[in-house]
Amino acid sequence: MKIVFTSGLDATHSDGWRQALHAALPEAQWLNPEDARSQGGHADAAVVANPPPGSLAGLHGLRLIQGLWAGVDRLLADPTLPTDVPLARMVDPAMSDAMAETALWAVLSLHRGFFVYAQRQAKQQWRAHLQRRADEVQVLILGTGSMGQAVFDRLAPLGYRLHSWRRSDGPHALALAQAQAHITINLLPLTPATEALLNAPFFNALPKGASLVNLARGAHVVDTDLLAALNSGHLRHAVLDVFHEEPLSTAHPYWRHPQVTVLPHMAAQTDPRSAAVLVAANLRALRDGLPLQYLVDRARGY
Amino acid sequence: MKIVFTSGLDATHSDGWRQALHAALPEAQWLNPEDARSQGGHADAAVVANPPPGSLAGLHGLRLIQGLWAGVDRLLADPTLPTDVPLARMVDPAMSDAMAETALWAVLSLHRGFFVYAQRQAKQQWRAHLQRRADEVQVLILGTGSMGQAVFDRLAPLGYRLHSWRRSDGPHALALAQAQAHITINLLPLTPATEALLNAPFFNALPKGASLVNLARGAHVVDTDLLAALNSGHLRHAVLDVFHEEPLSTAHPYWRHPQVTVLPHMAAQTDPRSAAVLVAANLRALRDGLPLQYLVDRARGY
Repeated sequence: MKIVFTSGLDATHSDGWRQALHAALPEAQWLNPEDARSQGGHADAAVVANPPPGSLAGLHGLRLIQGLWAGVDRLLADPTLPTDVPLARMVDPAMSDAMAETALWAVLSLHRGFFVYAQRQAKQQWRAHLQRRADEVQVLILGTGSMGQAVFDRLAPLGYRLHSWRRSDGPHALALAQAQAHITINLLPLTPATEALLNAPFFNALPKGASLVNLARGAHVVDTDLLAALNSGHLRHAVLDVFHEEPLSTAHPYWRHPQVTVLPHMAAQTDPRSAAVLVAANLRALRDGLPLQYLVDRARGY
Repeated sequence: MKIVFTSGLDATHSDGWRQALHAALPEAQWLNPEDARSQGGHADAAVVANPPPGSLAGLHGLRLIQGLWAGVDRLLADPTLPTDVPLARMVDPAMSDAMAETALWAVLSLHRGFFVYAQRQAKQQWRAHLQRRADEVQVLILGTGSMGQAVFDRLAPLGYRLHSWRRSDGPHALALAQAQAHITINLLPLTPATEALLNAPFFNALPKGASLVNLARGAHVVDTDLLAALNSGHLRHAVLDVFHEEPLSTAHPYWRHPQVTVLPHMAAQTDPRSAAVLVAANLRALRDGLPLQYLVDRARGY
């Protein structure tokens, strides 16, 4: 079986993936796109991590494109991606764990005021605020996929009041949950239906002093609306791991905003050690004609 | 039943406690020390929160001194505290929950590098480090009381490798656990046997790059040794909630040290709403001649 691996990652991360994939599926012939093209262009499958647009041009025989991330919005936005080849995304339990850790850290930070204490430390200011119990904090989790579920399962034992919402629950259910939500965590897939969902009307429907944690995609947020809601004092804080353009431009106001925590898209990395095993299992299923896992519904976008 | 309430807290916190205690035990006659003394000095019990030294002078008939915090080291250090009156501390599940939240936040912050990301944000630096799984992080919890147990129970489901230690486990068990400990969380009671335990030999026994989370008492730490271990690069980071003198002097090097997170003794506040109910139950037990809860062994110091 010939498999093309193509990545837009830096050399260290690319090599880490290449080694993990080779180790997990040693019987395959692993190629980069150039070598496959020079050998006539045939490949059975492609494994892709942030592939440069056009990476798969000139290849034929592909029966699976396996992404290494949970989100496939960037892959689907590449007009050169073959539309007649099944596309799979990665649903790695280690990635869900990592996402749940980041969400839990953000909720604890907001609930107990650790961002405020960091600002007080910078001013050598010794002052504790009154402590709220976890069951006094309402958390709205947008998205009920593997990520949303993992976050729910991590937060529930601490006593937080949790509401989950997915798009099929409709706008009325969202409005009810929003009115109570001290903290909103976004874990939705990015699709035309969810793009720019986090806009001024969304923020206005949250109670005064609410906070946003965006761990999904930058394009879910209307940046000018978020900045306005923070600056007006309606929103207290935003924790942002994802942005319209990444890396985030050094000139972007988020970097220096005292109510914004900027993370460099690190909330949940796919872990090559566990994910390569899942990729290998899917590729063996392809070879053996068995059902494939994690296939993307291109119409839904995830 | 006459009960004296005395507090060195600010007016807001004092009033909050007074109201919660009155509501929880309305049948008692609640007095401040001055009023008790002016009525002849008799009181059945005293409820104390950071009492100014000598607060209980001139009172007689006391059968219980009920502290509102988990630690009683400051009460025991007051030479005017009557030594022949049973002393109880507070073991409030809401306080254990709060402590576990703070410990979990600190462990997640250290494990996933959120203190580093905050420093990178200040420099508009977009760079993610490699992600470790929770089961690659060894956490040593010093103290196996209600706090240590609550922290253990919160960390375990996330997959961290946990070791607990109490003084009776002895120095050999400590040395074994230290050699592996990426993160040490101190939750020991402060006694003559644990004072200054966190000193240069302790830090040297940790692996390079280890971190310390001190949520117990400032006097557990030898500050000059901790600063030396941080400055040499042997220790990576310290999260400190407690200090030899509180408030921490604005001139103290901890405030401005890039590897130190200073918290204003907020890790776990006793919650008047739940604790007042427990205090009332203990005072009713005193009235009815039933066994008292949370009594301190003055020889052990906790």
